[in-house]
Amino acid sequence: MKEKSDILFGFHSVYEALKADRRTFYKIFISQKRSFKRSEQIKAIAGKRGIKIETAAPEFFDKMTSFANHQGILANTSFFPVKNASEVTTIIQKRQKPCFILIMESIEDPHNLGALIRTALCAGVDYILIPKDRCATPSSTVSRSSAGAMEHANIFMITNTASILRSLKQNGVWISGLDARGDTSLFDSDLTGDIALIIGGEHKGIRPGVKKECDFLLSIPNQGNINSLNASVAGGIAMYEALRQRN
Amino acid sequence: MKEKSDILFGFHSVYEALKADRRTFYKIFISQKRSFKRSEQIKAIAGKRGIKIETAAPEFFDKMTSFANHQGILANTSFFPVKNASEVTTIIQKRQKPCFILIMESIEDPHNLGALIRTALCAGVDYILIPKDRCATPSSTVSRSSAGAMEHANIFMITNTASILRSLKQNGVWISGLDARGDTSLFDSDLTGDIALIIGGEHKGIRPGVKKECDFLLSIPNQGNINSLNASVAGGIAMYEALRQRN
Repeated sequence: MKEKSDILFGFHSVYEALKADRRTFYKIFISQKRSFKRSEQIKAIAGKRGIKIETAAPEFFDKMTSFANHQGILANTSFFPVKNASEVTTIIQKRQKPCFILIMESIEDPHNLGALIRTALCAGVDYILIPKDRCATPSSTVSRSSAGAMEHANIFMITNTASILRSLKQNGVWISGLDARGDTSLFDSDLTGDIALIIGGEHKGIRPGVKKECDFLLSIPNQGNINSLNASVAGGIAMYEALRQRN
Repeated sequence: MKEKSDILFGFHSVYEALKADRRTFYKIFISQKRSFKRSEQIKAIAGKRGIKIETAAPEFFDKMTSFANHQGILANTSFFPVKNASEVTTIIQKRQKPCFILIMESIEDPHNLGALIRTALCAGVDYILIPKDRCATPSSTVSRSSAGAMEHANIFMITNTASILRSLKQNGVWISGLDARGDTSLFDSDLTGDIALIIGGEHKGIRPGVKKECDFLLSIPNQGNINSLNASVAGGIAMYEALRQRN
């Protein structure tokens, strides 16, 4: 494996990364026991680009991915390209249509982060902002959990969330935070126009310093006498309510 | 452990099962290393009901749950009470308000099933129908994945899905199936009144024989050039669109 490189695994992750064409592929490994059809799909694209493919024993994949669900497909690639969140401000200043930004706040579980990124792409989110220090990072595990959707996403890393929020607000973006104790029901919200939606972490939700910068705190109605929704489901419901309103 | 009994694990599962009071508790085990606050919440309810509590070493919990995420809390209980789906027809014939039924079709992953049940309770679903042979069963793993929500759910087991659907339709219930190729957009659907919503399996969606019985096939709009949504997120979006329309 190349030094300072990434190891993508699973069919969707490798296939979508090939389609997105944003990473450099150093080599692709396919298991001897891999099913024919999907291997062929990968070989077809790799062949056109001159990417080297090797066959390996199943044990190799288990070892390289610490027994993750690799499906016998692995790729040694450059890291996923991320940008600095400060660039988002410059980009949205030139916007031709209303923007839809998603901000992850302290999402710790890479599977939740992957599921949220996958949903974001389906819901028409334009830009995804992720705090550098307080959130799972866009790793190969996240790519796998997003079923490869991450490979197509525009992801920006934040060093100071409150400062980014202020800069977005100065550029006409309305900030809504998803909060179990929010005083506006999601279904009474206005999510048309230029918006940024903040999804809080699994355990403590949105931090007070970030909450303070929100224009609206939205709560998802709960008919049950039980715990609130899972973070990735809650995020999905909010993003799709935005999509419904915006179409 | 008692013969023919269930082993619940994790704080939320055990705590919600105690609150729901639908299982017989034979004994509760709490780890020596368990945090104080949550143990006390469980001890308080168990004490009032005269349920025996034992302390055990962490290894005991790993062994009993095959290293699941048990959080050092375990309960030996009777099985989760389920009913036969034929009883739903009798129940809804006496309904005082419009009913909201959720039908799981071939959901194989217990974590997806748990997440869907958790969301169903929050979205105000009245009855959950699960095929006996073609779906994960309401096990302790599902209870754990539902964060204990399953303990409060009204769950009915189906032996013949098509026949139950016909019987529901005879009783004035409209059947909508969630289908990626459905011809009605979820956002153009009418989910008020008496409805049953069918969520298809992770891999093949709703089977043709079941699809044939649906009054509507609803698709969730997808703005991305990627795979469809995760089953538990898709289910959450559809259930909450129903809740939005019904409120």
